[in-house]
Amino acid sequence: MSNSYGKIFRITTFGESHGAAVGVIVDGCPAGLEISEAEIQQALDRRRPGQSDITTPRKEEDKVTILSGVFGGKTTGTPIAMVVNNKDQHSHDYSHIEHAFRPSHADYTYTAKYGTRDYRGGGRSSARETVARVAAGALAAKLLSHYGIAVSAYVSQVGSIKLRKPYYKLDLSKIESNKVRCPDGKTASRMIGLIEETRDKLDTIGGVVSCVIKGVPAGLGEPVFDKLHAELGKAMLSINAVKGFEYGSGFEGVQMRGSEHNDQFYTDEAGNIRTRTNHSGGIQGGISNGQDIYFNVAFKPVATILQPQQTINDAGEEITLQGKGRHDPCVLPRAVPIVDAMAALVLADFLLRQKVNQV
Amino acid sequence: MSNSYGKIFRITTFGESHGAAVGVIVDGCPAGLEISEAEIQQALDRRRPGQSDITTPRKEEDKVTILSGVFGGKTTGTPIAMVVNNKDQHSHDYSHIEHAFRPSHADYTYTAKYGTRDYRGGGRSSARETVARVAAGALAAKLLSHYGIAVSAYVSQVGSIKLRKPYYKLDLSKIESNKVRCPDGKTASRMIGLIEETRDKLDTIGGVVSCVIKGVPAGLGEPVFDKLHAELGKAMLSINAVKGFEYGSGFEGVQMRGSEHNDQFYTDEAGNIRTRTNHSGGIQGGISNGQDIYFNVAFKPVATILQPQQTINDAGEEITLQGKGRHDPCVLPRAVPIVDAMAALVLADFLLRQKVNQV
Amino acid sequence: MSNSYGKIFRITTFGESHGAAVGVIVDGCPAGLEISEAEIQQALDRRRPGQSDITTPRKEEDKVTILSGVFGGKTTGTPIAMVVNNKDQHSHDYSHIEHAFRPSHADYTYTAKYGTRDYRGGGRSSARETVARVAAGALAAKLLSHYGIAVSAYVSQVGSIKLRKPYYKLDLSKIESNKVRCPDGKTASRMIGLIEETRDKLDTIGGVVSCVIKGVPAGLGEPVFDKLHAELGKAMLSINAVKGFEYGSGFEGVQMRGSEHNDQFYTDEAGNIRTRTNHSGGIQGGISNGQDIYFNVAFKPVATILQPQQTINDAGEEITLQGKGRHDPCVLPRAVPIVDAMAALVLADFLLRQKVNQV
Amino acid sequence: MSNSYGKIFRITTFGESHGAAVGVIVDGCPAGLEISEAEIQQALDRRRPGQSDITTPRKEEDKVTILSGVFGGKTTGTPIAMVVNNKDQHSHDYSHIEHAFRPSHADYTYTAKYGTRDYRGGGRSSARETVARVAAGALAAKLLSHYGIAVSAYVSQVGSIKLRKPYYKLDLSKIESNKVRCPDGKTASRMIGLIEETRDKLDTIGGVVSCVIKGVPAGLGEPVFDKLHAELGKAMLSINAVKGFEYGSGFEGVQMRGSEHNDQFYTDEAGNIRTRTNHSGGIQGGISNGQDIYFNVAFKPVATILQPQQTINDAGEEITLQGKGRHDPCVLPRAVPIVDAMAALVLADFLLRQKVNQV
Repeated sequence: MSNSYGKIFRITTFGESHGAAVGVIVDGCPAGLEISEAEIQQALDRRRPGQSDITTPRKEEDKVTILSGVFGGKTTGTPIAMVVNNKDQHSHDYSHIEHAFRPSHADYTYTAKYGTRDYRGGGRSSARETVARVAAGALAAKLLSHYGIAVSAYVSQVGSIKLRKPYYKLDLSKIESNKVRCPDGKTASRMIGLIEETRDKLDTIGGVVSCVIKGVPAGLGEPVFDKLHAELGKAMLSINAVKGFEYGSGFEGVQMRGSEHNDQFYTDEAGNIRTRTNHSGGIQGGISNGQDIYFNVAFKPVATILQPQQTINDAGEEITLQGKGRHDPCVLPRAVPIVDAMAALVLADFLLRQKVNQV
Repeated sequence: MSNSYGKIFRITTFGESHGAAVGVIVDGCPAGLEISEAEIQQALDRRRPGQSDITTPRKEEDKVTILSGVFGGKTTGTPIAMVVNNKDQHSHDYSHIEHAFRPSHADYTYTAKYGTRDYRGGGRSSARETVARVAAGALAAKLLSHYGIAVSAYVSQVGSIKLRKPYYKLDLSKIESNKVRCPDGKTASRMIGLIEETRDKLDTIGGVVSCVIKGVPAGLGEPVFDKLHAELGKAMLSINAVKGFEYGSGFEGVQMRGSEHNDQFYTDEAGNIRTRTNHSGGIQGGISNGQDIYFNVAFKPVATILQPQQTINDAGEEITLQGKGRHDPCVLPRAVPIVDAMAALVLADFLLRQKVNQV
Repeated sequence: MSNSYGKIFRITTFGESHGAAVGVIVDGCPAGLEISEAEIQQALDRRRPGQSDITTPRKEEDKVTILSGVFGGKTTGTPIAMVVNNKDQHSHDYSHIEHAFRPSHADYTYTAKYGTRDYRGGGRSSARETVARVAAGALAAKLLSHYGIAVSAYVSQVGSIKLRKPYYKLDLSKIESNKVRCPDGKTASRMIGLIEETRDKLDTIGGVVSCVIKGVPAGLGEPVFDKLHAELGKAMLSINAVKGFEYGSGFEGVQMRGSEHNDQFYTDEAGNIRTRTNHSGGIQGGISNGQDIYFNVAFKPVATILQPQQTINDAGEEITLQGKGRHDPCVLPRAVPIVDAMAALVLADFLLRQKVNQV
Repeated sequence: MSNSYGKIFRITTFGESHGAAVGVIVDGCPAGLEISEAEIQQALDRRRPGQSDITTPRKEEDKVTILSGVFGGKTTGTPIAMVVNNKDQHSHDYSHIEHAFRPSHADYTYTAKYGTRDYRGGGRSSARETVARVAAGALAAKLLSHYGIAVSAYVSQVGSIKLRKPYYKLDLSKIESNKVRCPDGKTASRMIGLIEETRDKLDTIGGVVSCVIKGVPAGLGEPVFDKLHAELGKAMLSINAVKGFEYGSGFEGVQMRGSEHNDQFYTDEAGNIRTRTNHSGGIQGGISNGQDIYFNVAFKPVATILQPQQTINDAGEEITLQGKGRHDPCVLPRAVPIVDAMAALVLADFLLRQKVNQV
């Protein structure tokens, strides 16, 4: 009951880490949108393992196939199914984790919930599931681009190394200029150094992805329960390893006085309604006000470490678990396209929902 | 399309701040639950304006009536409608705000969205809408109590005054012992002082509500999109004035190494599976693991201040707006029962959803 | 979980037959639609008991109040709550049915489902619930009228007395010209005679309501599961006492050859695409084709009869039940506005859904 | 927005007639259910083209692959994706229909809705989409069998040849004993004769599928909008070519008096509550009462005929269209497994929904 997201632009994902395939059905994409497998693939390549020496060295091609819903290079209004086959699904030995409850993984909770679990590589709880999100998000981003909306996520913190500049002082075109996806070169180098150091200690480290959405017209988002930032928050918190979400002034804003925090309206020379500050993060009462939307997403350190750990097995007995395989010392660089995808999915849905609000 | 929340235990709210009434229909509450108007009223009384000298001095009784779904003191499985009539709905003069876009309010965004708005007291965007949530939340909390689950929210920060103790060192039975709803008496006094000082300066101040949920069995929450913490996050972010949400180790956890952050499993003397630390905040892979759930919610300072402010009207002309009326200098004390309510609604829904996961 | 209907124009109803009130929240009605309580009341008056001597002589005013969502005579885009208070809710004696399972009523099935039931007048299973549908349907009909769509239901059969003329040979403006709501005067008289005869025998009789929808543009309805006729069918079958639904050629069409049944397309003088016949009932592949939509709805005879009947009580013991009170010998005349309402709700929802299908 | 069905046991389908593949994701199937590809395949084989000389002679293998959600022969609670690749997707010439609006097909309505269409073999509007439903239905039927519920559909009418015996006088084990799937041998022979005769005249013919569901416990189905028979009706009406649905006494029941139609309750020797007649069709107030559920589904004659027909093209010009290819003269035999599938999906969903109705 929980593998779908969105009300109108709605995705449903499937697939386990080491099953036959992962994929997605997008239902509700409007007809007439130009889209190609190559555009989807481009987004997947940003998420792909093995893309640099600070991510997992696993080699997966993650080649997408569109099975339906596109004809003559355009969407037809029918559901768009996209599938990525998994490689090497039968080649692994899982005997060391078949009965183990790995610390801070979902082995125990899945077993509690379902009475069983697919233990191969974490099964459905693996971040491999986000392949499907990124594919669907690429389609959503294409729809947004028709309306002049652009989403830009980037790494703003790794461990205690924090990019101090606010988003509007950054050159967002430089996000892809380094392997950690931080648009500030100097900070990026320090982040990369920290990730390498952590990797060499067989440990992992967390961080923060920040995201800016530009070009959103006033009026998107729904009041009450489906506020724009509430859906963004849910979407981000649904990504593996995320522990927190804040938008606009966020947690720091709680220390401000109302007289400081309020964003004054004015009319600019072009006659557009704008605000002099943007503590609201582009959203008021859950609805976009036409200013930039920006938010932060906190990622914990990856749970899979290559050090021995104490834990228990499914019989409740204490065991020592030795991690093995090839894993990310820090998920942040590869989390960027996932944040992009989820933000695009949220906005695409609200863009369509807004079409029905006035007679 | 956005006035409902929950999949199985599902609420739909209605009502404007100065309309005839606010209310809620709860659809999906199981039959056989004992409930009385008095129990609902008790929760509403915690939210009621005028309850202390640090909240708005407006006097509203907020008397609830159950219109359906309860027979012989028990729920029958049919929808439970609850209504609270608004007082004095015709007695106000709105001429100063009829055409104004108040700073950091939703006047402008509602107009952009709907082409119109009910300007009386903020209409639907007013926090008065949370009356309906608190009523529904009281019913959800009653259902949870049948399963041994208890939600406890409290104020942990006002402006820069922060309660440093973690939740497990607090006596949660003392939340109601002071008017700011902080279980630590000394910190509470300092918070009250700050609120009074801010009020006297005709200003407002933000803060943080923390929340602990005890007694949750392992297995609640759904993987992928409807993760337990993702729904908690959405529910909290849907509350007026909320800017951020974090659970477990939260934003601070990003600086930790995986080897520090991972929560080791062990079997306690009673044979229960537990973790030695709880950075996971009681949730792993989006599913409860049986440990305490805890999270923080950031509230910005209230936008309505009693000082003159520069803004524009709906013709785009610059105007000076002078706030009037009786407003909260700090919403935190009255936000506590709202956080309680939303948390209870999320848990009640997942409790029911868990009933269908195994053959 | 089942008291809501519609995806975008979505209603949620509440209320028991002899509870405090029945009502509805309409969520998703676009902003800017002119509506008044008087327009809603007009629809309720067509459904009201005691409107003629062939309906139940119970006197209920069914006075509607709009509690929210309308400001300055227009909808605001926020949820519209409407309530009708029940009269005399405490004046009845239910001792004869408190423990009885009335034949062909829902007493037994509610008890099986919920472990309890509100036995006062059938509780939630009473057709009194349709008050809420008619109120919401009146709003939907108002929205449709903005787009030139009109729904006209009428009684086409009572017992074995059947109106033989197809809908396009009838003067639909005469539906309200007689108390049975059959637009053909002669047939209406015979139907009235049969109802009176049945009433005098303390019995009840079934019939058929037919419905025509004119002015529907091509393109409404969704392929696959939410076909226009599938939703119409569900909506009709959800009305109390309905046993069947057919549209276009219906059950008779199964005897036709494809070469007879196929509707040939042509372009009329005004350049509109039309079909020479309309066995399709205005719907092809689940989507409207611009021709008239028409369908039939079968109603069984009312289960409440004033004769003694054998049945059992909730202890499984055989009892004789003697019906009492004031009931309809035939629901058909009062079912007409309910069919109108449900058809309008279906169309209003699809009208809005169609707004999001093309880039 | 309309390619999903079910609230808890929820399916989402994709695929066009001549696209790469058709398939389905089943979300919400409980964990722990034994299932194999062979069981799914068995159901698909009953639907497969080319299975006899009275169906289309097209040869399609319709080989199913399960991509996820099953591990060690059992469902895991995660989404179950099933895919069937289409054969020969590139081998056809569609020039004769690329611009034509075929009579009583969905070519025109899809174009009106989406501004475009996939014209290859009807695209998404083709009955090939039901491959996905049959695969999902086989899974649902497996779940039902765990609870002792069995669905049996059969052909009860072809053209004017009607099986007069009620369902309880038939030997339902004989449904598969002949190629038309009518459990009465004599009637089956006459039906087959009529289909052959119609086929030889290059024409098509309609009919009725009847369905019986045994073993349903009292309490399934939801009151108000999601009545058990309303969902069954919607599910059946969503199948290609269906024009009508009736259950229990159906359209004939409208002629009965209440005193005849009411089903008297009694307690049988085993202490079970039963009814002496079953005009209610096993459902009262939208909820199952433990008696057999039975209903009829009307199918129009197939629109594709091999005779020349007058119609128009997408420029509005009159054209003569000559059908070609290999098509069913009568869909009834192959519709039986589709009715089985949709009925199983409805029941599986209600079975799970019933788990949450009591504290």
